[in-house]
Amino acid sequence: MDMELWYTEKQTPNFGITAKIGKTLHHEQTEFQTLDVIETKQFGNMLVLDGMVMTTDKDEFVYHEMLTHVGMFTHPEPKRVLVIGGGDGGAIREVLKHPSVETATLCEIDRRVIEVSQKYFPEIAGKLTDLRVEIKVEDGIKHIEANPGKYDVILVDSTEPVGPAVGLFQKPFYQGIYEALRPGGVMVAQTESPWFNRELISQVYRDISGIFPITRLYTASIPTYPSGLWSFTLGSKEMDPLQVEESRFTPLETKYYHPGMHHALFQLPRFVSELLEQEG
Amino acid sequence: MDMELWYTEKQTPNFGITAKIGKTLHHEQTEFQTLDVIETKQFGNMLVLDGMVMTTDKDEFVYHEMLTHVGMFTHPEPKRVLVIGGGDGGAIREVLKHPSVETATLCEIDRRVIEVSQKYFPEIAGKLTDLRVEIKVEDGIKHIEANPGKYDVILVDSTEPVGPAVGLFQKPFYQGIYEALRPGGVMVAQTESPWFNRELISQVYRDISGIFPITRLYTASIPTYPSGLWSFTLGSKEMDPLQVEESRFTPLETKYYHPGMHHALFQLPRFVSELLEQEG
Amino acid sequence: MDMELWYTEKQTPNFGITAKIGKTLHHEQTEFQTLDVIETKQFGNMLVLDGMVMTTDKDEFVYHEMLTHVGMFTHPEPKRVLVIGGGDGGAIREVLKHPSVETATLCEIDRRVIEVSQKYFPEIAGKLTDLRVEIKVEDGIKHIEANPGKYDVILVDSTEPVGPAVGLFQKPFYQGIYEALRPGGVMVAQTESPWFNRELISQVYRDISGIFPITRLYTASIPTYPSGLWSFTLGSKEMDPLQVEESRFTPLETKYYHPGMHHALFQLPRFVSELLEQEG
Amino acid sequence: MDMELWYTEKQTPNFGITAKIGKTLHHEQTEFQTLDVIETKQFGNMLVLDGMVMTTDKDEFVYHEMLTHVGMFTHPEPKRVLVIGGGDGGAIREVLKHPSVETATLCEIDRRVIEVSQKYFPEIAGKLTDLRVEIKVEDGIKHIEANPGKYDVILVDSTEPVGPAVGLFQKPFYQGIYEALRPGGVMVAQTESPWFNRELISQVYRDISGIFPITRLYTASIPTYPSGLWSFTLGSKEMDPLQVEESRFTPLETKYYHPGMHHALFQLPRFVSELLEQEG
Repeated sequence: MDMELWYTEKQTPNFGITAKIGKTLHHEQTEFQTLDVIETKQFGNMLVLDGMVMTTDKDEFVYHEMLTHVGMFTHPEPKRVLVIGGGDGGAIREVLKHPSVETATLCEIDRRVIEVSQKYFPEIAGKLTDLRVEIKVEDGIKHIEANPGKYDVILVDSTEPVGPAVGLFQKPFYQGIYEALRPGGVMVAQTESPWFNRELISQVYRDISGIFPITRLYTASIPTYPSGLWSFTLGSKEMDPLQVEESRFTPLETKYYHPGMHHALFQLPRFVSELLEQEG
Repeated sequence: MDMELWYTEKQTPNFGITAKIGKTLHHEQTEFQTLDVIETKQFGNMLVLDGMVMTTDKDEFVYHEMLTHVGMFTHPEPKRVLVIGGGDGGAIREVLKHPSVETATLCEIDRRVIEVSQKYFPEIAGKLTDLRVEIKVEDGIKHIEANPGKYDVILVDSTEPVGPAVGLFQKPFYQGIYEALRPGGVMVAQTESPWFNRELISQVYRDISGIFPITRLYTASIPTYPSGLWSFTLGSKEMDPLQVEESRFTPLETKYYHPGMHHALFQLPRFVSELLEQEG
Repeated sequence: MDMELWYTEKQTPNFGITAKIGKTLHHEQTEFQTLDVIETKQFGNMLVLDGMVMTTDKDEFVYHEMLTHVGMFTHPEPKRVLVIGGGDGGAIREVLKHPSVETATLCEIDRRVIEVSQKYFPEIAGKLTDLRVEIKVEDGIKHIEANPGKYDVILVDSTEPVGPAVGLFQKPFYQGIYEALRPGGVMVAQTESPWFNRELISQVYRDISGIFPITRLYTASIPTYPSGLWSFTLGSKEMDPLQVEESRFTPLETKYYHPGMHHALFQLPRFVSELLEQEG
Repeated sequence: MDMELWYTEKQTPNFGITAKIGKTLHHEQTEFQTLDVIETKQFGNMLVLDGMVMTTDKDEFVYHEMLTHVGMFTHPEPKRVLVIGGGDGGAIREVLKHPSVETATLCEIDRRVIEVSQKYFPEIAGKLTDLRVEIKVEDGIKHIEANPGKYDVILVDSTEPVGPAVGLFQKPFYQGIYEALRPGGVMVAQTESPWFNRELISQVYRDISGIFPITRLYTASIPTYPSGLWSFTLGSKEMDPLQVEESRFTPLETKYYHPGMHHALFQLPRFVSELLEQEG
């Protein structure tokens, strides 16, 4: 009989997931957070920051593809792309699949997330060495303030809205993103679970709607994230993702996203679309 | 400090969910299975059969709406509808929202599931007393054999493919359903998780495709089901769900499904649609 | 397959026990604490106060016998006995086994502990209706202040030293007990685990030694208590428990204690006796 | 917030312990069993064989001292001592504290237990390099068969009576030990929990009583072992442990055992001594 070791994440005070693990591959208190890598039997290596699952070998593709391609295809020709957070490199990997991209900037505050991901998640972080990639180890809020009018697409790949990441869910930050975008620019932020973060989603949607002329929310199904249903909020200066023409879609090698779902994504479950109609 | 009691369901040998509970409301070994009702803090009352979560107060609407309305709207005028399994009454409740329905037959093998649901899940089971409802406490396989050419829509609301429910995932059963349907008939079966039951989904899709001229799979996001992503497989004698005309959709009070998503649903994540292309 | 429900008590921030349970029999927030009764498969009904196991059907005899008989046999003829805390009635049941006892007073602050124990633990609480028993629902500290020179034996059957029970582990309380005892009086207090509460044991031993001429500590093995090893501290005005004569021991029906172990108990494991030699 | 990883051992189907862990230091499937070393916050490094806790840094002294010294002091002058099992080296370390010892033989079937203990438990295994120690990597049953009349003291430091260790709890094995002992020889075997292994204790006691003229059982309190209470059964060819003279006791550096408890140990809790009176 084997020794059974289970990792349990309480995703809310009353609900969580539990995963059988093999080895603990890494544990570290970085300058910003605790950082663990554990080997799970179900989902492969798992990156955990401050006790919350960030990504796993087996299901990372959903999050990274869905954070990236909807916004990238909404912009007619994204050349300069910024990922805020996302030190594991998964969003950058997806960004680089778009041939128009000239520079993909990763702005991650915690250098150790990048380094540990390169060691334990080579399939996720492997493209960080691409020549088009520029890595900035700095605070995302400061970076956008310092770079007005620079980017075509900005992707906010943040941790949960606790501790250092709180500012990444507030209106001044989205205003800063608006200003850091060039004309025609598009932003997409991960915006948590429609089951467990209803007020946050309503608030963020209102905030982004107050800044960007076009705001759209869509969801994807991610097994290791709280409730398994995850939301992303897109703000766009000009182009409505619902108006993207077929010819815009170049073929990509993906496992979740495909252009055929680009418009379908916005047909939200009713309880989700109702979150977007609430008055503040 | 409160006493903490957590219910953990190992949804696979290596992964599961855990929910903080209040009271254990009911425990019983029925003729067919163990039947528990527990009070969870996150999802309200939870029905558990043989250790597997069947439904909860808070997220039941996803499963019941999505099992029901896609098939119901695919049929031009469903009058006689059969639900196999589904003793909690949730699918029946959704069926009755369609004004064309004349009789809604519930064929549940375990009388105790019905009785206990009526006691602890009044919002789910409450419509079982509707005059259009006919309850048969019997084996679903025998029921369809005994009723050829009777139904317009058949919904398979089964437990997991272990123990007594194994036969409900096999080709002879789907052949029986085909024969129990009238011309133009439509079936929908719950067909498990695309993450954890890949081979089963491929097999069932092949089996149903070998019987029905039109076969389609779609998914929905259910927090308390394994992986949070759930599949449904539709078999149709005549009508393709993708061809349903707008005029067919009557307004329904729902929380997840709405006619706007009827076609969008079939834009599957790529890793799911790939399951349907596999040779046996 | 059965639904598995496990109750876990973190006895320290880093260690705990876990017990498979059947039904949750009772849950209540009393005026003083949360009070739960759960049905465990291993130890029968379990009483839990503020999330900490107080007693179980199967192993209660160890705690109740060992809290009671060492002190009772140390006193030459205990007539008036006080139990502070102990609302489950187990210590009172043991006290009443001694024929010299004329009155056994239970001073329990929380009436609901008594009432719920009478309902769910009849074998423990059953003697609370004995004519020699007097029940006072009041604060133990106030009770001893109001009753100087009244008792022959006082047993402190408290919860853990957190919240309302903190005062029951402090020197003024032991001084009050000294004064509430008649000449020749004996006290015994439960004093937690030698593994997990080392400083508390040292401190309490010093405090009691500063008040009573004779102080002795002994231990017993209780599976459902933290570390499985539990300590009791005895303070005596005259009689040393090590000097009790054989003739004193009347036969008792017990499952753990027997007179043969009366002296042996004080042969402590070395790491325990070292706790008693520490300077404050 | 830290990632919380807990190791749970179900010590019975219905009860267990749970320990917060840091790193998993080692995992291996040896020729005989799975072997894990994990870092626990409460008890330091923990050795786990086939999913069962064998020893920990913090509480190992109880088991190793109590397995060893009672038997060693019962023999008037133990020169040749055999430990069967005990690959962690803890029993050998205790044996070597007795100045009469000339050779201490470790007979452990699984070489990897020895090697891994030497790496991760230097304080336990450190004396395995002592010049008086002889290590035999072989089956204990075969070893005693091949060595009649050789040893003064034999200590059976086995794993639980499942799988390969079953034979170490059966009468032919104890008969073999009897024959492997010289005149005046003494054996001690670990014999599981009086709470959870009642029948086994009764059976083993009867078996050893049927072979050795003197049989005695005693217990010790070990937090990480099932129920926290552990039994040891001693068989002796001549000397009764209750008759050991004071002069026999040489001073030892220990943390649990001391000569003062040598006789007290046999004053068993009544429910334990009752196990020894049962007819087969």
